[in-house]
Amino acid sequence: MDKSSISTPTLRRLPVYLNYLKCLPEDTRTISATAVAAALGLNEVQVRKDLSAASKNGGKPKMGYDVALLISDLEEFLGYRDTKTAVLVGVGRLGGALLSFRGFEECGIKIVAAFDNDPTKIGTRIDNTPIYDIHRLSEVCSTNGACIGIITTSPEHAQSLCDRMLQSGLLAIWNFSTAHLEVPDGIIVHNENLAVSLAMISRDLEEKLREEKPEA
Amino acid sequence: MDKSSISTPTLRRLPVYLNYLKCLPEDTRTISATAVAAALGLNEVQVRKDLSAASKNGGKPKMGYDVALLISDLEEFLGYRDTKTAVLVGVGRLGGALLSFRGFEECGIKIVAAFDNDPTKIGTRIDNTPIYDIHRLSEVCSTNGACIGIITTSPEHAQSLCDRMLQSGLLAIWNFSTAHLEVPDGIIVHNENLAVSLAMISRDLEEKLREEKPEA
Repeated sequence: MDKSSISTPTLRRLPVYLNYLKCLPEDTRTISATAVAAALGLNEVQVRKDLSAASKNGGKPKMGYDVALLISDLEEFLGYRDTKTAVLVGVGRLGGALLSFRGFEECGIKIVAAFDNDPTKIGTRIDNTPIYDIHRLSEVCSTNGACIGIITTSPEHAQSLCDRMLQSGLLAIWNFSTAHLEVPDGIIVHNENLAVSLAMISRDLEEKLREEKPEA
Repeated sequence: MDKSSISTPTLRRLPVYLNYLKCLPEDTRTISATAVAAALGLNEVQVRKDLSAASKNGGKPKMGYDVALLISDLEEFLGYRDTKTAVLVGVGRLGGALLSFRGFEECGIKIVAAFDNDPTKIGTRIDNTPIYDIHRLSEVCSTNGACIGIITTSPEHAQSLCDRMLQSGLLAIWNFSTAHLEVPDGIIVHNENLAVSLAMISRDLEEKLREEKPEA
């Protein structure tokens, strides 16, 4: 199946399957969609559809999926095998946490450079990623062929940094600030919004508390 | 409309509207669903439906929504007005970043305590949140009436910490580790999965690059 025609809910579930498969005991050779669904508490029909859409090798009747092949199919489908280059602006606590996060490379993203305006940070490295003066953004992006810009600054600086990133040729912005960013048509913006997660937790929690204490 | 009957896609958009409304110039008294849709690049019919589902005060024909009332309606609907107490385990870079993140309280969550097993961290504070020995988890959770547990440890410790959190009476787990957590029925787990975001950015980027370079 073509990746661009896959639904967003399916795309959200695929990395969850992948993570589950990677955490299986090493001697697990095959697995059924039923077993994946049961372990993750998901609907079996859904899991079956998702896996068959993303797996080019497919499963075998009675045997299920070959785990190693399914992992490789999912990684390829998700674009994790095709590494994209990113830069990060704003080396505060969150920026530092992302620079030291080890999971990016296995998801096909490599942060090649970070930027800040704090002279005590410029010229240093976090987990081997060099930190440059923000004035060198354009030069460093083009030298490295970067296409993704990660914004981890405070919201008041986010829009002007986003503009500079786009002038530097970046095509996608991954925005961890709470600012709403205005971008030209065709530019990809992905907002990492913890408020969304909190709203979902809050809804589920209120529902649960209501179930536990039914009104008299 | 009852909050529990709202769809997850709508719930994902509401904090985005709220954030946009809060960033409007202070003298903006009213706004139409059309203007919100245009600014955020969303479908107008969708925005109209979302806002009318979440706003108890509603909009007025020709006038649109009163901005201050709409902000207050959205905050109430999202449960941001009803503060829930959380604890965090794992004061590494990511844990530290979350402890110093200023946006939680306005989303109705208060992190009252953090835990670690590093003696150099125990007894200190990050942005006023005290860091305790992990052995005091149960005691501190019950003293504070905590209901949400945030896991920011490495994946290999996540499951055993999750189990301890549930034994300590927490009802919802917000999992920032990449581990897949097994929990009893009825416990809320929300996985903060950066791999999902990366998969979505990757899909959009590949689509964009394909559009720009059509095959001959």
